[in-house]
Amino acid sequence: MRHLISIEDLNKDDIIRILNKSEEFEDVALGKRRSRILEGKILANLFFEPSTRTRMSFETAMKKLGGEVINVSAQEASSIAKGETLADTIKVVSNYCDAIVIRHPLEGAARFASEHSRVPVINAGDGAGQHPTQTLLDLYTIKKEIGRIDGLKIALVGDLKYSRTIHSLIKALTLFETKIYLVSPPVLELPKEFLEELGGDIEKAELDQIVGDVDVIYVTRIQKERFLDEEEYRKVTGSYKITLETVKKMKESAIILHPLPRVDEIAVEVDYTKQAKYFKQAFYGVPVRMAILTEVML
Amino acid sequence: MRHLISIEDLNKDDIIRILNKSEEFEDVALGKRRSRILEGKILANLFFEPSTRTRMSFETAMKKLGGEVINVSAQEASSIAKGETLADTIKVVSNYCDAIVIRHPLEGAARFASEHSRVPVINAGDGAGQHPTQTLLDLYTIKKEIGRIDGLKIALVGDLKYSRTIHSLIKALTLFETKIYLVSPPVLELPKEFLEELGGDIEKAELDQIVGDVDVIYVTRIQKERFLDEEEYRKVTGSYKITLETVKKMKESAIILHPLPRVDEIAVEVDYTKQAKYFKQAFYGVPVRMAILTEVML
Amino acid sequence: MRHLISIEDLNKDDIIRILNKSEEFEDVALGKRRSRILEGKILANLFFEPSTRTRMSFETAMKKLGGEVINVSAQEASSIAKGETLADTIKVVSNYCDAIVIRHPLEGAARFASEHSRVPVINAGDGAGQHPTQTLLDLYTIKKEIGRIDGLKIALVGDLKYSRTIHSLIKALTLFETKIYLVSPPVLELPKEFLEELGGDIEKAELDQIVGDVDVIYVTRIQKERFLDEEEYRKVTGSYKITLETVKKMKESAIILHPLPRVDEIAVEVDYTKQAKYFKQAFYGVPVRMAILTEVML
Repeated sequence: MRHLISIEDLNKDDIIRILNKSEEFEDVALGKRRSRILEGKILANLFFEPSTRTRMSFETAMKKLGGEVINVSAQEASSIAKGETLADTIKVVSNYCDAIVIRHPLEGAARFASEHSRVPVINAGDGAGQHPTQTLLDLYTIKKEIGRIDGLKIALVGDLKYSRTIHSLIKALTLFETKIYLVSPPVLELPKEFLEELGGDIEKAELDQIVGDVDVIYVTRIQKERFLDEEEYRKVTGSYKITLETVKKMKESAIILHPLPRVDEIAVEVDYTKQAKYFKQAFYGVPVRMAILTEVML
Repeated sequence: MRHLISIEDLNKDDIIRILNKSEEFEDVALGKRRSRILEGKILANLFFEPSTRTRMSFETAMKKLGGEVINVSAQEASSIAKGETLADTIKVVSNYCDAIVIRHPLEGAARFASEHSRVPVINAGDGAGQHPTQTLLDLYTIKKEIGRIDGLKIALVGDLKYSRTIHSLIKALTLFETKIYLVSPPVLELPKEFLEELGGDIEKAELDQIVGDVDVIYVTRIQKERFLDEEEYRKVTGSYKITLETVKKMKESAIILHPLPRVDEIAVEVDYTKQAKYFKQAFYGVPVRMAILTEVML
Repeated sequence: MRHLISIEDLNKDDIIRILNKSEEFEDVALGKRRSRILEGKILANLFFEPSTRTRMSFETAMKKLGGEVINVSAQEASSIAKGETLADTIKVVSNYCDAIVIRHPLEGAARFASEHSRVPVINAGDGAGQHPTQTLLDLYTIKKEIGRIDGLKIALVGDLKYSRTIHSLIKALTLFETKIYLVSPPVLELPKEFLEELGGDIEKAELDQIVGDVDVIYVTRIQKERFLDEEEYRKVTGSYKITLETVKKMKESAIILHPLPRVDEIAVEVDYTKQAKYFKQAFYGVPVRMAILTEVML
């Protein structure tokens, strides 16, 4: 049985296989082709904290492949959690489905769940831990929109300290031949220990220095709660905001990504430029999750 | 792409076409005939405020036509709304479905959503604004139960000031050859500006004067919150209550409608008379929504 | 039209028929065989209080038979309940589905609902009342795991006073040739009136006396709230806990059941013994509910 708990469970070949498979499902995601490949299968969405976007994306992927979905809301899940251990919950729930997508506030919860489950478990985010399907859709977006991942220059912008999305993505990018620029306020830098473990071609930079040279700008949300005072927050975030000015300095072929939701990190006017690919990135979650669902269930 | 935002977007021919289409789907709604006409399609129910009846009615319409539904609860939706703009939410959600049904507390929200959506948007009520699918099912109920809409005398009873249902319905009725009686307490009269804009044959009346003459009595809920004091509320509502006495004065062929839920406006004993059609009206929501879903998605 | 409100609505032949039917559906529940026998049918899960396990089990049963499910959450249901009577809710909801599963905090609510419904109603627990589908799955587990029900010795352990599950089960067991032992703290004994109404071979016992002789130990949760003080609670529950020591004294062929969730009544180490059948019991809910759904809808 195959689980998908961490992006580190996959090697470069696994990732490439999943990205290729995703491409095959894109027509189905777009409604141009029908598939009933998961007919008779049931996916349980077990969300111990809300993440409506991720849940919807898995749900539409499953349903467009002819499968069925049972949702357990954050509210229901928290009421279950009060009454029994996670191990017991997983043992019971895995009787009622063919795979479990789990979202949990605690790091390690998805791995633990997989050890007690009769069916494959997919991690949809566990605390500060992993969110491997987000990473796969990020990679897929880059590959689809630029044509390759190897050889690209990629700027990671914003909160590099706390963002689970960034941590998973950077690990995956180091499997490819990429040049990575880290662009963040000093208080939100990638943790030193994390950086030391990584191989790959990685360096710190200012956005202004590299904006005209990079192929991908990956922006993340900077949360107000990370700052001691609101003025500091406003000052800091201002200088990492992507505006029309930023876009003008970018290469024609470069793209801007964001895991969404965004607050102020990207000006709304940017949405209408051809570099803006973050809504398309949200769409790509569907074919990528189709590929993942078929990987674990078939 | 077709949206359904306001009943005023439809002319008389559009309405008649939808009502005829609804009739074709009635067998499917009743389970006498199978259809998979929406197989492979996904409807997103995006409810920023709860409306379980409307949601269930769309959900059963979609599923009985072979389609699938993704629900976003009021709780989830309000948590999304805290984190991003409605425009962003719609841009993302419209990646995950083939149509969106939206319910929102603010007037104009549905129209705004349609401007940012990649897929058709159906308004299921936006604040004091519109609820066009309710109006279509009201018209359908009249047509099915009496055989026509033109030529009928229709009494609108209760809260004519705040009821979104009444405002949409009255606009649609003026497209037909109907005589409309407005029956309401003075504090809940149809707003003067609203009345002046309307064409058609409309006049104020007391229920007693017209009860034996009308073909349809359409009753709406009078909400306690509209009154300054509870005694006033009780005095007023008492005189607009439909009882067995009221029914005895009605024509044999006349019908009583109500958008539900009812509180005290219609006595429970009335349920067992043949004039009572409000539960059947709830059922008619299914074939009418089937017609609407196929209109916008096929 | 057939409802399932109380286990007492069924005679022994009915029960045996449903258990045999459940066996036929086990392959479908396990995913070894496909069925679309309920295609085109819609089940409404109307839960006025949360019971995620029961809801999921009905949902997977319905979906694995090709049917569709509309869920009404406890939160939605309670908001509906504030606005209208249960009779009105049932009259409306039964327009939108082919059967209703109802869970309600008040005893008698399921019977009342069945009197106002246009479609079959299945009771999934009404207050201190009944939970007949739990009883059927309990019986099915015994029959499957031991091979028969007649002739068995069965110990009911824990809260025999308040447990709805126990009350339904004991009534069903007296239809078979069983010997029943009642094992409980004095404050949680089966109510005298209840005991006097029952026929059958029933006696009180201490767990130690009968543990080596019984075929089934059915354990229920002892709730802290039943005791005036926490020390009393801890003292009492300790002596009814199933541990590895208990299992060692049991017959090789005997089984341990529990309706779940468990807190402390069964030590986690017991899970790995072959007597532990409570998670399998949870699985058996699926084929049994498949049998019940087809009984009422086809």
